[in-house]
Amino acid sequence: MLLHLSTWLEVEAYLEQSTGIILPIGSTEQHGPTGLIGTDAICAEAIAQGVGAEIEALVAPTIQVGMALHHTAFPGSMSLRPSTMILVIRDYLTSLAKAGFRKFFFINGHGGNVATLKAAFSETYDHLSNLGISNEVQCVVSNWYMCSSVYQLAKELYGNQEGSHATPSEVAVTQYVYPDFIKTAPLSEPVAKGHRIYGAIDFRRNYPDGRMGSNPALATPEHGEQLYQLAVKEISREYLTFLG
Amino acid sequence: MLLHLSTWLEVEAYLEQSTGIILPIGSTEQHGPTGLIGTDAICAEAIAQGVGAEIEALVAPTIQVGMALHHTAFPGSMSLRPSTMILVIRDYLTSLAKAGFRKFFFINGHGGNVATLKAAFSETYDHLSNLGISNEVQCVVSNWYMCSSVYQLAKELYGNQEGSHATPSEVAVTQYVYPDFIKTAPLSEPVAKGHRIYGAIDFRRNYPDGRMGSNPALATPEHGEQLYQLAVKEISREYLTFLG
Amino acid sequence: MLLHLSTWLEVEAYLEQSTGIILPIGSTEQHGPTGLIGTDAICAEAIAQGVGAEIEALVAPTIQVGMALHHTAFPGSMSLRPSTMILVIRDYLTSLAKAGFRKFFFINGHGGNVATLKAAFSETYDHLSNLGISNEVQCVVSNWYMCSSVYQLAKELYGNQEGSHATPSEVAVTQYVYPDFIKTAPLSEPVAKGHRIYGAIDFRRNYPDGRMGSNPALATPEHGEQLYQLAVKEISREYLTFLG
Amino acid sequence: MLLHLSTWLEVEAYLEQSTGIILPIGSTEQHGPTGLIGTDAICAEAIAQGVGAEIEALVAPTIQVGMALHHTAFPGSMSLRPSTMILVIRDYLTSLAKAGFRKFFFINGHGGNVATLKAAFSETYDHLSNLGISNEVQCVVSNWYMCSSVYQLAKELYGNQEGSHATPSEVAVTQYVYPDFIKTAPLSEPVAKGHRIYGAIDFRRNYPDGRMGSNPALATPEHGEQLYQLAVKEISREYLTFLG
Amino acid sequence: MLLHLSTWLEVEAYLEQSTGIILPIGSTEQHGPTGLIGTDAICAEAIAQGVGAEIEALVAPTIQVGMALHHTAFPGSMSLRPSTMILVIRDYLTSLAKAGFRKFFFINGHGGNVATLKAAFSETYDHLSNLGISNEVQCVVSNWYMCSSVYQLAKELYGNQEGSHATPSEVAVTQYVYPDFIKTAPLSEPVAKGHRIYGAIDFRRNYPDGRMGSNPALATPEHGEQLYQLAVKEISREYLTFLG
Amino acid sequence: MLLHLSTWLEVEAYLEQSTGIILPIGSTEQHGPTGLIGTDAICAEAIAQGVGAEIEALVAPTIQVGMALHHTAFPGSMSLRPSTMILVIRDYLTSLAKAGFRKFFFINGHGGNVATLKAAFSETYDHLSNLGISNEVQCVVSNWYMCSSVYQLAKELYGNQEGSHATPSEVAVTQYVYPDFIKTAPLSEPVAKGHRIYGAIDFRRNYPDGRMGSNPALATPEHGEQLYQLAVKEISREYLTFLG
Repeated sequence: MLLHLSTWLEVEAYLEQSTGIILPIGSTEQHGPTGLIGTDAICAEAIAQGVGAEIEALVAPTIQVGMALHHTAFPGSMSLRPSTMILVIRDYLTSLAKAGFRKFFFINGHGGNVATLKAAFSETYDHLSNLGISNEVQCVVSNWYMCSSVYQLAKELYGNQEGSHATPSEVAVTQYVYPDFIKTAPLSEPVAKGHRIYGAIDFRRNYPDGRMGSNPALATPEHGEQLYQLAVKEISREYLTFLG
Repeated sequence: MLLHLSTWLEVEAYLEQSTGIILPIGSTEQHGPTGLIGTDAICAEAIAQGVGAEIEALVAPTIQVGMALHHTAFPGSMSLRPSTMILVIRDYLTSLAKAGFRKFFFINGHGGNVATLKAAFSETYDHLSNLGISNEVQCVVSNWYMCSSVYQLAKELYGNQEGSHATPSEVAVTQYVYPDFIKTAPLSEPVAKGHRIYGAIDFRRNYPDGRMGSNPALATPEHGEQLYQLAVKEISREYLTFLG
Repeated sequence: MLLHLSTWLEVEAYLEQSTGIILPIGSTEQHGPTGLIGTDAICAEAIAQGVGAEIEALVAPTIQVGMALHHTAFPGSMSLRPSTMILVIRDYLTSLAKAGFRKFFFINGHGGNVATLKAAFSETYDHLSNLGISNEVQCVVSNWYMCSSVYQLAKELYGNQEGSHATPSEVAVTQYVYPDFIKTAPLSEPVAKGHRIYGAIDFRRNYPDGRMGSNPALATPEHGEQLYQLAVKEISREYLTFLG
Repeated sequence: MLLHLSTWLEVEAYLEQSTGIILPIGSTEQHGPTGLIGTDAICAEAIAQGVGAEIEALVAPTIQVGMALHHTAFPGSMSLRPSTMILVIRDYLTSLAKAGFRKFFFINGHGGNVATLKAAFSETYDHLSNLGISNEVQCVVSNWYMCSSVYQLAKELYGNQEGSHATPSEVAVTQYVYPDFIKTAPLSEPVAKGHRIYGAIDFRRNYPDGRMGSNPALATPEHGEQLYQLAVKEISREYLTFLG
Repeated sequence: MLLHLSTWLEVEAYLEQSTGIILPIGSTEQHGPTGLIGTDAICAEAIAQGVGAEIEALVAPTIQVGMALHHTAFPGSMSLRPSTMILVIRDYLTSLAKAGFRKFFFINGHGGNVATLKAAFSETYDHLSNLGISNEVQCVVSNWYMCSSVYQLAKELYGNQEGSHATPSEVAVTQYVYPDFIKTAPLSEPVAKGHRIYGAIDFRRNYPDGRMGSNPALATPEHGEQLYQLAVKEISREYLTFLG
Repeated sequence: MLLHLSTWLEVEAYLEQSTGIILPIGSTEQHGPTGLIGTDAICAEAIAQGVGAEIEALVAPTIQVGMALHHTAFPGSMSLRPSTMILVIRDYLTSLAKAGFRKFFFINGHGGNVATLKAAFSETYDHLSNLGISNEVQCVVSNWYMCSSVYQLAKELYGNQEGSHATPSEVAVTQYVYPDFIKTAPLSEPVAKGHRIYGAIDFRRNYPDGRMGSNPALATPEHGEQLYQLAVKEISREYLTFLG
């Protein structure tokens, strides 16, 4: 059940069954010469909708732009600053908590979001408590690419060439979702890896084509489907456990 | 050309042709007993993508949640506070302006966004100028439902029953985009209308089912297609004029 | 009844009769070679005090500096950023709402304030509701220069030469209020017009003497008095309707 | 020379002579049973305009609402929060500094403003330096009621009955400026005094009619004129010293 | 009793006896060629702990970094902006007020903190009242260097050479606390004095070695002990009066 | 070399050798019935000073209060909100970066700080880049309790009874640092564990005495010394690697 394709009467009815909601969060950032800029949002959204369908949970609209400041030296990347993203999450959850939602399950497609998301959860608990709205709100973030089943398959399929950004596994999922948008471009060898992440200028200097140790040329839509299925299955269980 | 389905190399190439970008902005809010909560985002996104295809302009990911505080007494509605939304717009445009974008064309599906958007534009010009990024940035907002061709057709089709929220014209566009999600529910008579908009509690008291003077039961997917075509055509011209 | 010329005991007594208050808001910005920098505040204040006298409503001190970032490339212009102005309005109304005021009627003299004011109203409703202060607060903005009677007279008197900034009608009102401060200066021909408003540098480039399509040399104090009378009359009715 | 009664061309010319500007700042707050709510703004404005006339300095519009949170349990009081007031001052001075102003001389009528004003000065120096606008900006605040000549006369006239809020000296100045708005009301004996200032509720409990140790019934317009003259004279010298 | 060396059970027990707490606040900023960068924090902490021991009051961890923007042109200086410091104080006091603390007694070692601290107190009273946490919170700041006994001894010992920053009296206290960290360096003659404080660049230009009219070479650990004893004694009485 | 015990001249000299600085960060929060409220700050400070001594690196004053909102239902706990902490870190690093520091190495004693710290690093890189201060700033956080040598010893010593808050290993370090402040209290059996962390009220309900699965009664000062030595040794190497 997708929030944006529901009516408020349907949401009202849903709230009598459950106070849980799934919020997909991605990013809009460079993913190397062949990865889609929307990769993280595409993956998070597809998997979240898969989970929602599997277990009849409500899925909110995808947060398309996350915390990707370190990618902003590549054109097309967009980012919220962490302080802004905290306010965005706080506003989202305040709206929903006022309506009765209590259990917020984020399905995340971008490692760079995690720290700010967790900071935002703390900020939000305090805010909702201060306003007397609720002391019972619970938030968790599930990173689809960290699912053990996903991680294991990615390792089998790609080994060391999985890398840590613009990975073949995430590219594969986008190829499964958007088979008409499979991109090709020369990928220079060897790919940069092992540099810590600091500011945007530094990042681009260290990772000149945007990839971090990955070989996205290994991705196929078939892999993407497998990874997607595993993620949906594993996260569905995780969500049900969260609901308790 | 959709930003999220492009690579950064493609954006780099695009920037050599144009510094313009289209940003669809909607809202996630109740739209009466039969309107989809995502109506404003769905319409803005569809029309923006139509315009982008028509004139080969780049289209950014849709801003799904806007300024809808007055709708938040209905479950499922989500909103940014205006002060947060200003920061979001500022962050989006700062990312893009650093990459060389200069002309930001918002296609908007929600009247409640307009004031905050305009405030955000002023804030952003000042911010980008202060940081020395650019004094040349230009933003405009085009409300698809205000296109003269759209307005005229809506009037012909629905007359007074168009109303001003959960209108048959916007519902029709969502029916065209999502024909499998056409909702029905009893619509009480007469529909409330004519109350000014203040806070959320007051709004729900005045507009108990969420509609404002509208009869969305008149909507059809065929109308939606017509309205969509008119909006794409008219806004495409508007965008080209804006590019200059 | 002017707030700044009242005692708190008088305000306490007033609140037993009415929870309404008038807030004049202007701007401090260039108004062309001959217009006073305080034009918008002077007009808003004079008309607000006229309305207050006409219908025995309380009038708050004038907000002298508004949202005029686009004028700040001209010396003497002052502006709040929209995000600051939202906080200012929120603080003002929070103070007054705690004391029991509920109906806030802004009389505005500057088009550039409108978007931010409306954003501030939404922010304030939410804030006051969150704090449990009130769900019943109502704000409206009345732009004196948009009164139909004013608009019509300006058209009769000045036709196309009314323009949209440093207009003869607003200059006329300042001449009526401050007959000793009628300024003259050469006004170059033709006057710039028709450019959209973006940032401050761009604005000054497009409108080199600050006027937007106007001929303020047509203004006379007598016109000013007429315009003032019409505005006071029309807005007085509007305020009474607002009080309900 | 009053900024709001000048044109931008006149300000441009002024800046060739001087980069100094006077900013009157008051407050909108209860001043006991007989004191005007605008007392602090009225005094600061009158004296600032007197100084401006005396030494041909430019005077900005008066900041009417300052930091008076502790007075907000009395109806009619309005306040900015300190964090908002810092932004307001920062925005004001940023606008003016961009135009070339460097020396900002605040004439203040309200003790409660001083701490926040000084905090705002520090914030502003840092802000303007960070943006590369100027490292040379200088701000001072002159409290008219602290002028040694004013202080001495107040002591002679009122002795212990001067008190520290709703004082006869400030009331006298308002009587001189607005002789038609001299208020009378019973003043209970003895007047509260000696309590520290904390929050608004606590303040009203300690100072039930709003006065702090003062007997404003002693004020006369003649005193007001004398105090005004002394303040103008002393602050004019102070301003010239500041300009250097 | 030091908060950081207590358990929460001990704090719970303490709150049954007293709702008061002492908060030392210093600064991390240049103190001339021989003064320790931590001088203000060292003095405030030592004296606060002395007071706490004397009268069995709870002492919070020292705020090490305060408002020292004007010192930041000297390496090693650190500062919060005033707007940040207001939030820090607000957060600290909100945490403690939720637990039942009501009387906050700051022992301050840095003149530059005072304005922002006072602004923060106002902001906090309002915040805690708005959230319904308490209307009874009380904050005061005691500047140890302003104790009359301290001031008098410093005058006797150093006369005019006390100056106003990097003073021998504060250096003496640090020598008493950290006798192994007594620094020497040539002190140029004459020392700069008499300049007002504006921005950081200006400050360093006016006070090239960081001292303001002081001769810290006069300091001795023995003086420091005397000054410390006087401050502890006087402030202990002050705190007891504050508790009432 | 401790910043607070240095002069600015010494810092100036240090900067010619190194642009690195160590920043200890702890928390002020309940640590169970026997743990000190300052545990996290005490450990971080001691280890940071140990590292600084070992490798002659400059150590900044300890951040005593971090992100501990979830502990604030226990008296004595203090916390910054994440949004405030981001500003604090940003201000600290901005001051230091202006002076020439580039490599910021945080030694952290509290798991709850990590997310917000990382968010703050991103915010700061962007801020310093926007202001033109530097694109080369680098920040890392080293959690002493995560050192592999520390982790291994804790496991050997305490096995499952290490738990995750108020752990015997951190208590042991505080016993080593403050042997006179070893606390005892009855520790109920069994200790709560395994609950996720959400808001403060929920946390206290789940963890009624504040411990999370730990048995701090196992701690000894001798263990503390061993853990301290291991942490200093391992983190010293880590810092040197970071300096490059």
